Amino acid sequence: MTDKIGFIGLGIMGRPMALNLINAGYGLVVHARRKESMEPLVAAGATACTSPAAVARQASMLFTMVSDTPDVEQVILGDDMASNAVIAGLQPGALVVDMSTISASATRIIAERVRSAGAEMLDAPVSGGDVGAIAGTLSIMVGGSASAFERARPLLEVMGKNIVHVGDCGAGQVCKACNQVLISQTIAAVGEALLLAEASGVDAAKVREALLGGFANSRALEIHGQRMLDQQYQPGFKSVLFQKDLRLVLEAAHELGLALPGAAQAAQLVNALVGQDNGELDSAAMFLSQRRLNGL
Amino acid sequence: MTDKIGFIGLGIMGRPMALNLINAGYGLVVHARRKESMEPLVAAGATACTSPAAVARQASMLFTMVSDTPDVEQVILGDDMASNAVIAGLQPGALVVDMSTISASATRIIAERVRSAGAEMLDAPVSGGDVGAIAGTLSIMVGGSASAFERARPLLEVMGKNIVHVGDCGAGQVCKACNQVLISQTIAAVGEALLLAEASGVDAAKVREALLGGFANSRALEIHGQRMLDQQYQPGFKSVLFQKDLRLVLEAAHELGLALPGAAQAAQLVNALVGQDNGELDSAAMFLSQRRLNGL
Repeated sequence: MTDKIGFIGLGIMGRPMALNLINAGYGLVVHARRKESMEPLVAAGATACTSPAAVARQASMLFTMVSDTPDVEQVILGDDMASNAVIAGLQPGALVVDMSTISASATRIIAERVRSAGAEMLDAPVSGGDVGAIAGTLSIMVGGSASAFERARPLLEVMGKNIVHVGDCGAGQVCKACNQVLISQTIAAVGEALLLAEASGVDAAKVREALLGGFANSRALEIHGQRMLDQQYQPGFKSVLFQKDLRLVLEAAHELGLALPGAAQAAQLVNALVGQDNGELDSAAMFLSQRRLNGL
Repeated sequence: MTDKIGFIGLGIMGRPMALNLINAGYGLVVHARRKESMEPLVAAGATACTSPAAVARQASMLFTMVSDTPDVEQVILGDDMASNAVIAGLQPGALVVDMSTISASATRIIAERVRSAGAEMLDAPVSGGDVGAIAGTLSIMVGGSASAFERARPLLEVMGKNIVHVGDCGAGQVCKACNQVLISQTIAAVGEALLLAEASGVDAAKVREALLGGFANSRALEIHGQRMLDQQYQPGFKSVLFQKDLRLVLEAAHELGLALPGAAQAAQLVNALVGQDNGELDSAAMFLSQRRLNGL
């Protein structure tokens, strides 16, 4: 049973990703904290395990897709003697692929522990949201050795489309943080542009259309700009997760002693959004914070 | 001679735009403050005039392409009895097309004065820089009546490619301001993303490449991101003009009582750049301000 694939974390992202692996013909052993989360996978043919360690014992390659840094630490390293954690069950030469979005510096520490246990780790965070997870079109940013990347690549290609080996261990998480630095500010900029048009009495939809053809064009202007105009904030990508990702960005900036004032400011709009009980709305709802600030 | 086309302002932008009109077969009467600026146009067949009023007397349609709000006020309205200004020479039914980037609220006042003089005005600011002006590929954002837009359109099509009638008088300037709101923050966001990669010890070029394929993509990531990586800051679009445009944005926000914190912050990076004697560099050199802030 050593050629089974493990999958730990079966939430809104992990579930469809694991299902895509099953549909591609891989035999899966899975674990999730809540039993109910495992049911659709078991129904599709996966074997449920009672712990991360049990998954690790049966799988030469295993994926983790959980919420945040402490969750990954808990699943892979455990918090005491690690008896239930992945590291307690790791096969020699196994490959752990963490697809969660977590701290790059914590990732490097976890990877070092995995290496000490005779296995290897890749960080492979994704972007594209649950829509991309279901469709198997996620962007996947990978950090770790080239050989581990090649080993995981056929499975990553089942889950995503734009798959880039960015660099060594942690580089995938750094790249994901850069992605959020960029997208948070681009969405905020789109919101400000539409606000300025509206406040000036000019048709914001016309302005968006005009700007799509020039240097101001971006995916955010195309997609999030349209959502703002339509006041359509079904996720997409939930603001509460965006808030978490931006916290990771600002923690990294703090650790590095690096000033990222633009990202810091964009994060405040997301903070305000979550604070107004809109954390379940799409990231484009940053526009609501900008509107509230201006009494609109 | 009433079917001649007037062109006032023959600087880095106006000169190639006027030349493109001549090359398309239009007879031009031109004026510029400095005689030398008119010489290449005269050599190409244009008639030089000693004042904006003299241009207006000979042209049923005339274009202005000068630096800032006071320049347009000076050229079109003049500052005393307006004896040398466009308005003193306007033919009945003439069309004035101001392609400068200036204040939207001032534009509305100037257009009202032009209307009172029995003529009509369009605001038609451009983006695309001198490269776009030479190639005739400018984006042109137009405000004014639909009939005036149709009348000017054949000539605008000689100068640009992406030509949008955004709305009534002033809407072109509003759209241009929105363009600068968007692009200033997108460039700044690209800079922060590349900085975070570099500070984290990850190949920034690889990160850019990975992000081009996802939601974080933008023209700024493509173009300005590459310039940052290459440290190639030949304009392009000069930062000193960018600074002026962002001043117009923040003046509009002030007039409207509108908070645009992202644009305000991006403008500070451009202020610092110009303050460090880098005003002649391309807008992508905002990255230099971000690097200086971080001692890089």
